[in-house]
Amino acid sequence: MLTNQLESGFVAVDQTLLDVVATDVEMLQDASHHIIASGGKRIRPRVVFLSYLAAGGSNLDEVVPLAAAIELVHTATLVHDDINDHSLTRRGKISVHARFGRTFALLTGDYLFTKVYELMAPYGPNYNRIMAGACVSLVEGETLQAAAAKAGTINQETYKVIITRKTASLFGAAARMGTSLAGGDETLASNLSEYGYYLGLAFQIVDDILDIVGDPDMMGKPVGNDLTQGAGALIAQNGKKGLGPTKVSSPDPIDEYIARLRNSGAVDVAFAQANEWAGRAKEALTFLPDSEARMELYRLVELVIERQK
Amino acid sequence: MLTNQLESGFVAVDQTLLDVVATDVEMLQDASHHIIASGGKRIRPRVVFLSYLAAGGSNLDEVVPLAAAIELVHTATLVHDDINDHSLTRRGKISVHARFGRTFALLTGDYLFTKVYELMAPYGPNYNRIMAGACVSLVEGETLQAAAAKAGTINQETYKVIITRKTASLFGAAARMGTSLAGGDETLASNLSEYGYYLGLAFQIVDDILDIVGDPDMMGKPVGNDLTQGAGALIAQNGKKGLGPTKVSSPDPIDEYIARLRNSGAVDVAFAQANEWAGRAKEALTFLPDSEARMELYRLVELVIERQK
Repeated sequence: MLTNQLESGFVAVDQTLLDVVATDVEMLQDASHHIIASGGKRIRPRVVFLSYLAAGGSNLDEVVPLAAAIELVHTATLVHDDINDHSLTRRGKISVHARFGRTFALLTGDYLFTKVYELMAPYGPNYNRIMAGACVSLVEGETLQAAAAKAGTINQETYKVIITRKTASLFGAAARMGTSLAGGDETLASNLSEYGYYLGLAFQIVDDILDIVGDPDMMGKPVGNDLTQGAGALIAQNGKKGLGPTKVSSPDPIDEYIARLRNSGAVDVAFAQANEWAGRAKEALTFLPDSEARMELYRLVELVIERQK
Repeated sequence: MLTNQLESGFVAVDQTLLDVVATDVEMLQDASHHIIASGGKRIRPRVVFLSYLAAGGSNLDEVVPLAAAIELVHTATLVHDDINDHSLTRRGKISVHARFGRTFALLTGDYLFTKVYELMAPYGPNYNRIMAGACVSLVEGETLQAAAAKAGTINQETYKVIITRKTASLFGAAARMGTSLAGGDETLASNLSEYGYYLGLAFQIVDDILDIVGDPDMMGKPVGNDLTQGAGALIAQNGKKGLGPTKVSSPDPIDEYIARLRNSGAVDVAFAQANEWAGRAKEALTFLPDSEARMELYRLVELVIERQK
């Protein structure tokens, strides 16, 4: 029952994403379809759907545009990230940046963001304030990350600020808006928002860990890519004692560095942090009324921790 | 009276712009202040204010956030444009791209756009639909322009499509929203929207003409800059017959090309087009009730045509 409901929800989200980017400007439509059709985990729409259902909502159609908008914020970010990171691949396919060039990738990211705005407009001021806040936070987090990468320094505190703003805020907003659209009260919205927040933190640190220790074929992007941009720096930081001087030798210093990180214990420290955040996400579910959706939210935490890609 | 009202409106817009970009992420605040403090003509906020007043509005505070949001859409575009155009100067100052680097310029443009969203959220669905539509149109126009520049071909029809989407749509939306917020009815909103649309077309073609024949010291940016990106291509197109083969010789082919364009009669053709659109903008004011604001809207058309920078 729930599975079927979610399945048709995801189909509707994908259709909405394809429909909303339709335009006679072929370049924008092609580039948008390229990144949308490349899939992705659709974890943010899942958080919207499950929060909505756990808060007693029954008609997923009501939140499909919201779920699509949340996914599109993330998608727009990926397109712009790939410009800044010079990434050639994304989700196992050539990146928009590599395929369509920098100018059109920049414009495609902008275009997707205007479509977020279009999808959200009908929801009214309260939802748009939340969404705008999450988008602001996301860009702030990306900027802090780029600044830390440039400075070459990061510590655990900065790392948490970065992933809070760039990832956890949007997850929290997704859960809060899903709850409110179901008519959930402020207590419920704040519990589910906290769930989303910690799920987002756990998701991001696991993402950063996988960037270092993951299998590149499963990841669909080169391993160590984020490391070069500083995203894996927390792990690097934790691993410093075990690693000794971080000066590395050619021909592939990143490969060598990754190998040393894997053996340093730093990854274990990062996983312990991921587990702590996962625990908090589960705790936030304690006060929710029992339901199939609540169980799925619980299971989602475990999937995030156990995922291999 | 009207002048004082407008003056305090512009002060409020500038303050709103500075306030809304406040953040503890110094890079974003610094880069945002850099572009906001560089001034600009604030013509779009003027269209919002005058439409609001011409439609009978009396409290400009009501439209200050809207006017700031409209200006911010334009500002965000400039920051991203300068990346794509490799422009080193903007409004007589170093561009965000040149000063803060490409990565931070990209993020600053994104940030300004999220702030548009934040400023607009309180206005509710109808206004946000209009604003989202104008933003979509703007990015489509920019993309068509970049595609035409890349293909190296443009004709009058394509040129009009480009400037309609990248400039006239936002001008039209500014006028429409200003009118509606004053409680103006659909007839009034559609007349003023048409005014904004033609004013935007006239403004853009004059801008493109100035890019070719303007005084670089007055423009605050290098003359011929947009030409290299294809924006002056309509004028180039009109001038082709007079120019013969467009192959140009070093050391500065752009300077030489501009000199030849100036002498070709193409600029006169473009000015004739500007005047036609200006006439249509004035016509759209015919059905408006008489007021000081209506006179100012009329005068604004003439300023747009006569401006030297």
